[in-house]
Amino acid sequence: MTVTFEDVAAAAVRIEGVARRTPIHTSSTLDDRLGAKQVFLKCENFQRAGAFKFRGAYNTLAQLSDEERTQGVLTYSSGNHAQALSLAGRILGVEVTVVMPSDAPTVKREATEGYGGKIVLYERDETSREALGAEIAKEKGLTIVPPYDDPRIVAGQGTTAWELVQEAGFLDLLLVPCGGGGLLSGCGVVMKNLQPGCRVIGIEPDKADDAARSFESGRLQTVTNPDTIADGARTPSLGRVTFPLVRKYVDSFATVTDDEILDATWFLWERTKLVVEPTGALGVAALLAGKVDVAGRRVGVVLSGGNADFPALLRAWEARKPVRH
Amino acid sequence: MTVTFEDVAAAAVRIEGVARRTPIHTSSTLDDRLGAKQVFLKCENFQRAGAFKFRGAYNTLAQLSDEERTQGVLTYSSGNHAQALSLAGRILGVEVTVVMPSDAPTVKREATEGYGGKIVLYERDETSREALGAEIAKEKGLTIVPPYDDPRIVAGQGTTAWELVQEAGFLDLLLVPCGGGGLLSGCGVVMKNLQPGCRVIGIEPDKADDAARSFESGRLQTVTNPDTIADGARTPSLGRVTFPLVRKYVDSFATVTDDEILDATWFLWERTKLVVEPTGALGVAALLAGKVDVAGRRVGVVLSGGNADFPALLRAWEARKPVRH
Repeated sequence: MTVTFEDVAAAAVRIEGVARRTPIHTSSTLDDRLGAKQVFLKCENFQRAGAFKFRGAYNTLAQLSDEERTQGVLTYSSGNHAQALSLAGRILGVEVTVVMPSDAPTVKREATEGYGGKIVLYERDETSREALGAEIAKEKGLTIVPPYDDPRIVAGQGTTAWELVQEAGFLDLLLVPCGGGGLLSGCGVVMKNLQPGCRVIGIEPDKADDAARSFESGRLQTVTNPDTIADGARTPSLGRVTFPLVRKYVDSFATVTDDEILDATWFLWERTKLVVEPTGALGVAALLAGKVDVAGRRVGVVLSGGNADFPALLRAWEARKPVRH
Repeated sequence: MTVTFEDVAAAAVRIEGVARRTPIHTSSTLDDRLGAKQVFLKCENFQRAGAFKFRGAYNTLAQLSDEERTQGVLTYSSGNHAQALSLAGRILGVEVTVVMPSDAPTVKREATEGYGGKIVLYERDETSREALGAEIAKEKGLTIVPPYDDPRIVAGQGTTAWELVQEAGFLDLLLVPCGGGGLLSGCGVVMKNLQPGCRVIGIEPDKADDAARSFESGRLQTVTNPDTIADGARTPSLGRVTFPLVRKYVDSFATVTDDEILDATWFLWERTKLVVEPTGALGVAALLAGKVDVAGRRVGVVLSGGNADFPALLRAWEARKPVRH
């Protein structure tokens, strides 16, 4: 159940020509402000379906048996994984069922349906998505594709870091947003195999700091429906696959407040012209808030996605003002 | 006072390694919606100082005599040209004075000063920027660098189209925002020399349709302080240099309403994750509003800039709702 660099390399071959090889942007404004040698922004907001999630989703579906493909797959997710899996399913001809909470943002529901995913809604307080998902999957013979806790998912997400270092070269630091730890652990596997001297840092909202606490304590910690603007990091905990990988390959964690996330999101939109969702801005939030020292360093930052809930974000900015960097 | 393809080619050499070779983005969502073969978005929102203006500004300053450089330059502009010229001046060691109306957005004033430009404010109703600019320039021995009506400016802006066709190949249509016509005429020169079969279409807000009317009538038409959200297209008229070039190299014009511009801007931000200012969204606005038939065509669109006045745009979106494409 672990993930090796070879798994990531194999995933890179599988997604080649299907996933987008996303661009890396730099910003002299950001470098100057931080005193960094150079910051490399890996723009997964430009990934297909708007987030890094497509990498792992496609890598997983591409490895299903013919029978599994014919039966179809199921996942539980309120957002980016659902959209990514639906798109990957459409490309590979696999029917995708998505168990989603009834209060998920309309834009995410519509996007999932737009990619051909079939949605089953549930009430967040009445049942767990895992329980309902397992029930439906068993009844209909569907294969469950979890949002992060699967070696195929982790290997797919790791291709993000591999593309980054192929283009940016040696990095002193890599900052990666952390929800369930799929992206973070996949990137950790790559960096510690290719550039063991690079510090890999997971970034979480302080309201959903379960991974940071799990990392520090060595025991799996959880959060319950945390109220953070970074909706991609609201996952309850790391998983059985990702927790050991995070312990092995991540050097440290930093947390940021929702205000810091809002300011970083604004900075990215206004100054770098990149639409990044709050979760995608976690790394830049940590940098702008001075949580990580990057003076003179070459720094990679994964902008994990761009599927912002516009009305919610605009309201939050309005309430937060003044927001200026 | 005309501009040839050779002038654009020379400008491309001058700006090489200084201006950014901006990326070209594509969107299957956009292609599907329009029935286009493929739409190529030339992302000048990622240009230095946030808009195509840096190309012409740098190309002009790079051709000044040593004496002119030492004396300094002056321009009148409420926005992107001022920022671009200030940045080009800082790079080349030329002092830049900017005559700007007192009601220019704070963010644009601060950005100009951030690039080292010296601002002289004037009251929009009391004097003309050209008159005031000429007075100061004469008094201090400054060279005037106008925002568009100069062959060096036009040649610099034309490099946008040249980069686009080098990467995208043959285009059936090219849509270019039109304010004073510098970008449009420069792009026209390139396309009609390299791909005479490509239709070059200027796009204007309907509230500032002076260029469209000038093109139709053959006589220079003007507008006075038009109230359009596309602030980059509020220029009063084409110029002595750009009008003849537009007549010679442009095939037609299309106009769009402010609501169409707002919807296109939203579409670009939400769906393609690109922060584009309203003027920069003119081409996509024309496409989404069905003003130009692109069925089965390969279509270039210049996204001219990304320096949106966020508070103003967010307010306009709020008033416009629902805005969904």
